[in-house]
Amino acid sequence: MKILFLNGPNLNLLGQREPAVYGRTTLAEIETAVRKRAGETGAAIDFRQTNLEGELINWIHSAKGVMDVIVLNAAAYTHTSVALRDAIAAVGVPTIEIHLSNTHAREAFRHQSMIAPVCRGQIAGFGALSYVLAVDAALSLG
Amino acid sequence: MKILFLNGPNLNLLGQREPAVYGRTTLAEIETAVRKRAGETGAAIDFRQTNLEGELINWIHSAKGVMDVIVLNAAAYTHTSVALRDAIAAVGVPTIEIHLSNTHAREAFRHQSMIAPVCRGQIAGFGALSYVLAVDAALSLG
Amino acid sequence: MKILFLNGPNLNLLGQREPAVYGRTTLAEIETAVRKRAGETGAAIDFRQTNLEGELINWIHSAKGVMDVIVLNAAAYTHTSVALRDAIAAVGVPTIEIHLSNTHAREAFRHQSMIAPVCRGQIAGFGALSYVLAVDAALSLG
Amino acid sequence: MKILFLNGPNLNLLGQREPAVYGRTTLAEIETAVRKRAGETGAAIDFRQTNLEGELINWIHSAKGVMDVIVLNAAAYTHTSVALRDAIAAVGVPTIEIHLSNTHAREAFRHQSMIAPVCRGQIAGFGALSYVLAVDAALSLG
Amino acid sequence: MKILFLNGPNLNLLGQREPAVYGRTTLAEIETAVRKRAGETGAAIDFRQTNLEGELINWIHSAKGVMDVIVLNAAAYTHTSVALRDAIAAVGVPTIEIHLSNTHAREAFRHQSMIAPVCRGQIAGFGALSYVLAVDAALSLG
Amino acid sequence: MKILFLNGPNLNLLGQREPAVYGRTTLAEIETAVRKRAGETGAAIDFRQTNLEGELINWIHSAKGVMDVIVLNAAAYTHTSVALRDAIAAVGVPTIEIHLSNTHAREAFRHQSMIAPVCRGQIAGFGALSYVLAVDAALSLG
Amino acid sequence: MKILFLNGPNLNLLGQREPAVYGRTTLAEIETAVRKRAGETGAAIDFRQTNLEGELINWIHSAKGVMDVIVLNAAAYTHTSVALRDAIAAVGVPTIEIHLSNTHAREAFRHQSMIAPVCRGQIAGFGALSYVLAVDAALSLG
Amino acid sequence: MKILFLNGPNLNLLGQREPAVYGRTTLAEIETAVRKRAGETGAAIDFRQTNLEGELINWIHSAKGVMDVIVLNAAAYTHTSVALRDAIAAVGVPTIEIHLSNTHAREAFRHQSMIAPVCRGQIAGFGALSYVLAVDAALSLG
Amino acid sequence: MKILFLNGPNLNLLGQREPAVYGRTTLAEIETAVRKRAGETGAAIDFRQTNLEGELINWIHSAKGVMDVIVLNAAAYTHTSVALRDAIAAVGVPTIEIHLSNTHAREAFRHQSMIAPVCRGQIAGFGALSYVLAVDAALSLG
Amino acid sequence: MKILFLNGPNLNLLGQREPAVYGRTTLAEIETAVRKRAGETGAAIDFRQTNLEGELINWIHSAKGVMDVIVLNAAAYTHTSVALRDAIAAVGVPTIEIHLSNTHAREAFRHQSMIAPVCRGQIAGFGALSYVLAVDAALSLG
Amino acid sequence: MKILFLNGPNLNLLGQREPAVYGRTTLAEIETAVRKRAGETGAAIDFRQTNLEGELINWIHSAKGVMDVIVLNAAAYTHTSVALRDAIAAVGVPTIEIHLSNTHAREAFRHQSMIAPVCRGQIAGFGALSYVLAVDAALSLG
Amino acid sequence: MKILFLNGPNLNLLGQREPAVYGRTTLAEIETAVRKRAGETGAAIDFRQTNLEGELINWIHSAKGVMDVIVLNAAAYTHTSVALRDAIAAVGVPTIEIHLSNTHAREAFRHQSMIAPVCRGQIAGFGALSYVLAVDAALSLG
Repeated sequence: MKILFLNGPNLNLLGQREPAVYGRTTLAEIETAVRKRAGETGAAIDFRQTNLEGELINWIHSAKGVMDVIVLNAAAYTHTSVALRDAIAAVGVPTIEIHLSNTHAREAFRHQSMIAPVCRGQIAGFGALSYVLAVDAALSLG
Repeated sequence: MKILFLNGPNLNLLGQREPAVYGRTTLAEIETAVRKRAGETGAAIDFRQTNLEGELINWIHSAKGVMDVIVLNAAAYTHTSVALRDAIAAVGVPTIEIHLSNTHAREAFRHQSMIAPVCRGQIAGFGALSYVLAVDAALSLG
Repeated sequence: MKILFLNGPNLNLLGQREPAVYGRTTLAEIETAVRKRAGETGAAIDFRQTNLEGELINWIHSAKGVMDVIVLNAAAYTHTSVALRDAIAAVGVPTIEIHLSNTHAREAFRHQSMIAPVCRGQIAGFGALSYVLAVDAALSLG
Repeated sequence: MKILFLNGPNLNLLGQREPAVYGRTTLAEIETAVRKRAGETGAAIDFRQTNLEGELINWIHSAKGVMDVIVLNAAAYTHTSVALRDAIAAVGVPTIEIHLSNTHAREAFRHQSMIAPVCRGQIAGFGALSYVLAVDAALSLG
Repeated sequence: MKILFLNGPNLNLLGQREPAVYGRTTLAEIETAVRKRAGETGAAIDFRQTNLEGELINWIHSAKGVMDVIVLNAAAYTHTSVALRDAIAAVGVPTIEIHLSNTHAREAFRHQSMIAPVCRGQIAGFGALSYVLAVDAALSLG
Repeated sequence: MKILFLNGPNLNLLGQREPAVYGRTTLAEIETAVRKRAGETGAAIDFRQTNLEGELINWIHSAKGVMDVIVLNAAAYTHTSVALRDAIAAVGVPTIEIHLSNTHAREAFRHQSMIAPVCRGQIAGFGALSYVLAVDAALSLG
Repeated sequence: MKILFLNGPNLNLLGQREPAVYGRTTLAEIETAVRKRAGETGAAIDFRQTNLEGELINWIHSAKGVMDVIVLNAAAYTHTSVALRDAIAAVGVPTIEIHLSNTHAREAFRHQSMIAPVCRGQIAGFGALSYVLAVDAALSLG
Repeated sequence: MKILFLNGPNLNLLGQREPAVYGRTTLAEIETAVRKRAGETGAAIDFRQTNLEGELINWIHSAKGVMDVIVLNAAAYTHTSVALRDAIAAVGVPTIEIHLSNTHAREAFRHQSMIAPVCRGQIAGFGALSYVLAVDAALSLG
Repeated sequence: MKILFLNGPNLNLLGQREPAVYGRTTLAEIETAVRKRAGETGAAIDFRQTNLEGELINWIHSAKGVMDVIVLNAAAYTHTSVALRDAIAAVGVPTIEIHLSNTHAREAFRHQSMIAPVCRGQIAGFGALSYVLAVDAALSLG
Repeated sequence: MKILFLNGPNLNLLGQREPAVYGRTTLAEIETAVRKRAGETGAAIDFRQTNLEGELINWIHSAKGVMDVIVLNAAAYTHTSVALRDAIAAVGVPTIEIHLSNTHAREAFRHQSMIAPVCRGQIAGFGALSYVLAVDAALSLG
Repeated sequence: MKILFLNGPNLNLLGQREPAVYGRTTLAEIETAVRKRAGETGAAIDFRQTNLEGELINWIHSAKGVMDVIVLNAAAYTHTSVALRDAIAAVGVPTIEIHLSNTHAREAFRHQSMIAPVCRGQIAGFGALSYVLAVDAALSLG
Repeated sequence: MKILFLNGPNLNLLGQREPAVYGRTTLAEIETAVRKRAGETGAAIDFRQTNLEGELINWIHSAKGVMDVIVLNAAAYTHTSVALRDAIAAVGVPTIEIHLSNTHAREAFRHQSMIAPVCRGQIAGFGALSYVLAVDAALSLG
């Protein structure tokens, strides 16, 4: 079981960025937690971050035939990117949408997810735990 | 750690009802899986179902000062009930919203959740596993 | 051929309630007319009324495998209830939506029916005759 | 009792046209069923079809003072024609709106009926039976 | 003069529930204040609370011919219930809509009242005093 | 100065049709009043009515290079016809939009005019006088 | 027959203001044309302009029981003023809405008239002639 | 306790204006009733009316540091005036919104109140009694 | 390969009508260009124009089983006609939607095409060349 | 270079009014800062405030041919006044829209500016500095 | 004649990606077909693909003064990118919008094209043939 | 005081691109003007342009703890980019939104700014001067 964790724009700032909303955990600490849980289940992890929409698309393409599941925190691109949606639909790799915060408790423009209809499910609002739970969810889809 | 699992309208028909959408697992089988996972973690479970909106509200009220976390699959009431939303806000018990199916991949009127803003997070789209993951998520909120 | 007639909120007041809109016939008189027409066709009738949304759902569930057709005047819940819609879809019993008045000639919020897409057809605007015509329509669906 | 049945655009193709939606019965067969039921009740029938909106209006005008009830399947013009609506209101002949299919279970633009507010009632979703039931409904309005 | 005070969902939690929004007065204390003012004016009071929409409807029905005025704090059902609206219109007992908080200063979905058009007037935003003022308003309607 | 008066659907019924809205004057009486006023000003009148949208278009086309002004009461087609709008724009003959009733005091769908932006002006709400005033307005455009 | 002509904001600038839209005729020249036509018909004219919404309301009030018809070019207040609408409805003097330009051919926010539903009719798009035609229209309402 | 009663546009016509909507009581009679109730409670009253939005703003400004409560019937400006809303927020004097009629039972544009969110509460629909009840409500805010 | 070219309202005026939008080429010249290209490919052409929506529908019906492809410039009916849409779906002949101008660069009401979803593809914005390219496109669908 | 600074409703309360939003600087202090910067550049300043929409319009009219630039803080009227917009367009004096606060970070109804399209530019969010920067901007437009 | 063919996100997956929607032809095969047709007409082709919105913009910039026509399949960016629209408008090179599938027969969010208003025309729905027809269309624009 | 000037998509074409909208000044000339004004005030300037949304985000991240103020002309990304908004909020560096043109006088989709709520203020419509004024505004925020 190989799982590709993809992180979108501004997530590299985690821990420093608006801690009232996103908490104080850094993306590196989240990666450590994910690798720990994956290690217990025997899953292999590839964990990346970029601020470029096009690079996320390239990475999703590269998962085709290589990875079993994609776990995607598309951050701000969640709400606007038809291109990410098409990429997920195009490669056919089961994808899980995750968010650190409860996006439905925030601004109205964050209530719409362009990618939700082409993902298998959502886990949102549990901070770093959203990522760890996604490992277990991914195992069930593989 | 005491967790109250509440199930809303039509979930008593699980396993027979539109299996293409909801799968063939019954609510009793889901309860068994939840109790198994809870047992591993030492959490106590109360697991209920009703078709009446008012009864869900009564049960949420009864959790105040008694249960540590509520896990709520409000089913159809998710999309229309201001009263459930007010009940969750009123009792102040941390609440997790769960769904069997990916509601965002279905009809437009299922994309809106009246209760999401007052819940801590969402887990949706993983069938019975949505319930099991909620046990782990609940532990982190207690 | 067994037909379940279900009547929703405020229909118990028929005959006394806003006669300019709903006429002077009582629900008991309508039941008599339905039973008369059913008797001519050999159909068996179960005829009920409740003001509780959840009780309507319970009754729809109880029709599964027992009744051949449901005839549903959901009254005000027609316009708001996702839960009734899910119940109809869940049990798979052919359902006919009926109304005493022409809902499309009334307030805008009565123009939308949440249950229409999961029913087989609609008969509306003919007063008590809407119920009687539904017996004939039900026979064609059985 | 004289009843004018009017059929709007594309209904001349019934039986050949999208049978999954509209069934395999032809308009001539429907006319036969209508005449049979009317014969049992002593009603006289005039049954017509046209693809021109203006011709439907002319026919509705011609019913004034001559016909007792109009039964109108306006097909696609149902959703767009203010002129048909005005014609029905202008002649004052009681009019019943009918449809072969359940329009509320189809595309969103078919959910709105411009003519419903000026008709007495609706019968929709029962195929050819919608027409036959309209004979009985018409008798009650005459 | 007999006045029926009806309280909708979650109002049983008053005093404990979100005191920043609803204050620290309990429903029992409000009932006491209402009875005191009613005693001064010679009005008789029936004061009830329920979390079930259908029970509110049943109580409204029971007021027909028995009570002179209904004072209704429908709480969350204010914003969604067509059935309550129909019940008020059906019984014809003059009804006053009241709210503890200023609903117009809260979330957008609380700005719409389904029942306002069939009530005689509104009193909102004065906490327990909203109930007491309603006694005086009721006297003017009896 | 040659003026083409065009009348759209249902205007042939004027005088019999909903007199509370449209008055008791017939179209023939209106034509007489128009011809009288035109005679005083030396203008020649062509006065027509049809229920077919396409015939109105044909008549507008025929005015090109022949008539100086078109006065158009498009009736129900006012609110829906892009084709009439295109016809008016295509022939380049100055066109005046008229209505018997004040369309803005009626249903919401009558508040929008598809043809208003390509007409020179509007006269509405004065019954037959709307037509007579249009003669004077036409003289100023010729 | 006494007619009150009221002119709203910015109309004092007529002739200098955006001549491509409003023409080069001044308000004084329009008043002269109005008085000339009124003189021919024996009507008495009161002709005023103000930039203050409240002064327009005061003038409308003063017409009650004194003037037979109001002709109102409310200019920009046409699109926003509920207060003007209420004033017209309150005094019960028949009112004609006029505009120099064809407001329907301009920005979308000029397509809505708050006052149209309480006026008897509209004349728009004929420049100064809109005012003169209103004299004739007023005579028919007096 | 000093209370400033402010009345907006067209309220000077009360008693003559649309009695079916607003009743036959004049503003002077309402002022008398208010002064009577205030006298019983020891409150001092300043009672004013104007048709100018700007004058209402000036009067609200003048209340700062002088009056304890403002009772505002902004009439038509209720639905459109951001400036009144800002004035109320700026002076910080507790303000009660009142209406003679039940605005929610009237046209859709009267359902929105621009000032409600910055007022403490609303009393609407009780005619002159709305004003008298506001005296008692004001006492509770002072 | 037989191709039916159908032209809707106002296209008979091509060359004279608003040349800034539609160019100076006449419909006859376009027909010549189409026949020339068709001749090169061996396709047979039937080329027609009408201003009547109902006649377009009749012609589409007549293509069933006779023509291989329909090329349809529905002009203004593109944006409003559900009846044309139903006709195309009913006959099952592959249909290509064409336009002379780029409708998406024009008024907002021209951005919506009612017929696009039931056509195979669109060619728009190339003037007469839109028609010629449609010949090649039609060959690929036959 | 002569610059007219116009200030709309409630700006006379600056310094006392909601200091969290608008700061503690008074309008007199802002005028001093503007005059200081103008003095450095040789520009003459006229600086006014009113709460009346109509008076703002009068002042804008008076600038025609007299002032080189208008700097307008229309405050609440920014969002509702078509009349101010027309006044600016009518006089043709270049106008700069300014705001103390960042209106786009506040309530949704403050995001729309009716006057922005007829102004040359906007400066918003810098408190008193918005006014001073407008002096420099005005110099570039003169 | 030099033509720049630009392909947006996910088009590199053509042939593998959702063949039910996009067909089995690869982008390389399409390029071959384009080059073949271009060769027949003497046009030179530059053919590129990228998943980055910014790179598409850079390539459009590079066409200024170098290429005669751009043919752009912007894929998912069609529906969201103001930046692409601005780029096309900025360089002034005639641009043709193409799509493989009939975007109007798909999800609602694909019905809007941000770039259509600044392109010369559209060709959509013919698979690889959309590209080949664009070569001929480009020749007419050069 | 260190100020980072960031320029978004298509701004590299300034001077050549649509001069009627954007003027003839190049971005290099604007940079010179900015550096001149900054030199007078002692501020240090970093001035960059890119067509990639992700690169803008990276540059904003790099400003954290290094630059005192960001001045951002996000061009087309202003209207669509949630990611830029999040980046500005995440780094906490005071940011000023600027535009060359008055975006509110252009297409409707340019009236919405996704980034305005997280910026301190806006300067728009003054061409190159918008940038120079931003230097002074930046000094006040440092």
